[in-house]
Amino acid sequence: MSGPVRILGIDPGLRRTGWGLVIAEGNRLSYVACGTVVSSEKEALATRLRQLHDGLAERVRALEPDEVAVEETFVNKDAQATLKLGHARAIALLVPALAGLPVAEYAANLVKKTVVGTGHAEKRQIQAMIRVLLPKADPTSPDAADALAIAVTHAHHRRARALGA
Amino acid sequence: MSGPVRILGIDPGLRRTGWGLVIAEGNRLSYVACGTVVSSEKEALATRLRQLHDGLAERVRALEPDEVAVEETFVNKDAQATLKLGHARAIALLVPALAGLPVAEYAANLVKKTVVGTGHAEKRQIQAMIRVLLPKADPTSPDAADALAIAVTHAHHRRARALGA
Repeated sequence: MSGPVRILGIDPGLRRTGWGLVIAEGNRLSYVACGTVVSSEKEALATRLRQLHDGLAERVRALEPDEVAVEETFVNKDAQATLKLGHARAIALLVPALAGLPVAEYAANLVKKTVVGTGHAEKRQIQAMIRVLLPKADPTSPDAADALAIAVTHAHHRRARALGA
Repeated sequence: MSGPVRILGIDPGLRRTGWGLVIAEGNRLSYVACGTVVSSEKEALATRLRQLHDGLAERVRALEPDEVAVEETFVNKDAQATLKLGHARAIALLVPALAGLPVAEYAANLVKKTVVGTGHAEKRQIQAMIRVLLPKADPTSPDAADALAIAVTHAHHRRARALGA
């Protein structure tokens, strides 16, 4: 088995992008940090994307992840909302790619199924399970909790793949 | 009146992003260069976004624009297509923002109305008008022609604003 792996989970959003770092070693998970990067609604879109880029790039430099996992965008019927999420998600994918890091993508319902056990879990169920799985974590926002859930999902699936499951 | 202004137009697309540079001086426009930046469909999304970023960043360094104009995404009923365009467009907005350049956005029908005279122009009408407005331009792709049309639109509207029209 390999040594500890630092996994950064990212839950992209134009106004608030959640991030969370966990360390996976074998079947053990430990919490390191989580938070959100925000963009100012008063600014033009290009400036807001730069704010998200700069915030995430600073997190990547400081946290030194080995692997990154990003939530796949849920495409809904509101095309404008889908487009905004697409903008934020592009930055969440680009920043680790520019740092040369591998980036995995997970669908929202796979994240829910992995962490809570059902693909139809609510946000508060995810937050509750994160507190069970990572007792030292105290995510101050749903976005940060979701980002930790994405990191946990990647830890689970990368280990399942490594074990040939 | 101010001196010559180098304007980079960008027509974002995940597979092909068109770019075109013109110089505006008073009411004169001159063509400098145009082309496309492509991403490889075989690669993962994060890698493709990095390819677009790297290609556009290299163009911005080489062309030294003063101002950048990007087409606003046309939101259509195909949510997946809207999302892909949103990813590409985020990179088109981010790259000039990271370079500290002002970025303007124009709706597709305003570009058509400015260049052809009607908001419902077809792509070949845009290409034909670009050849009239910029006789030295020989855009090798519709994306490059559209990018020049966006640059021409910005040249027109920035001048109209400067003249108080």
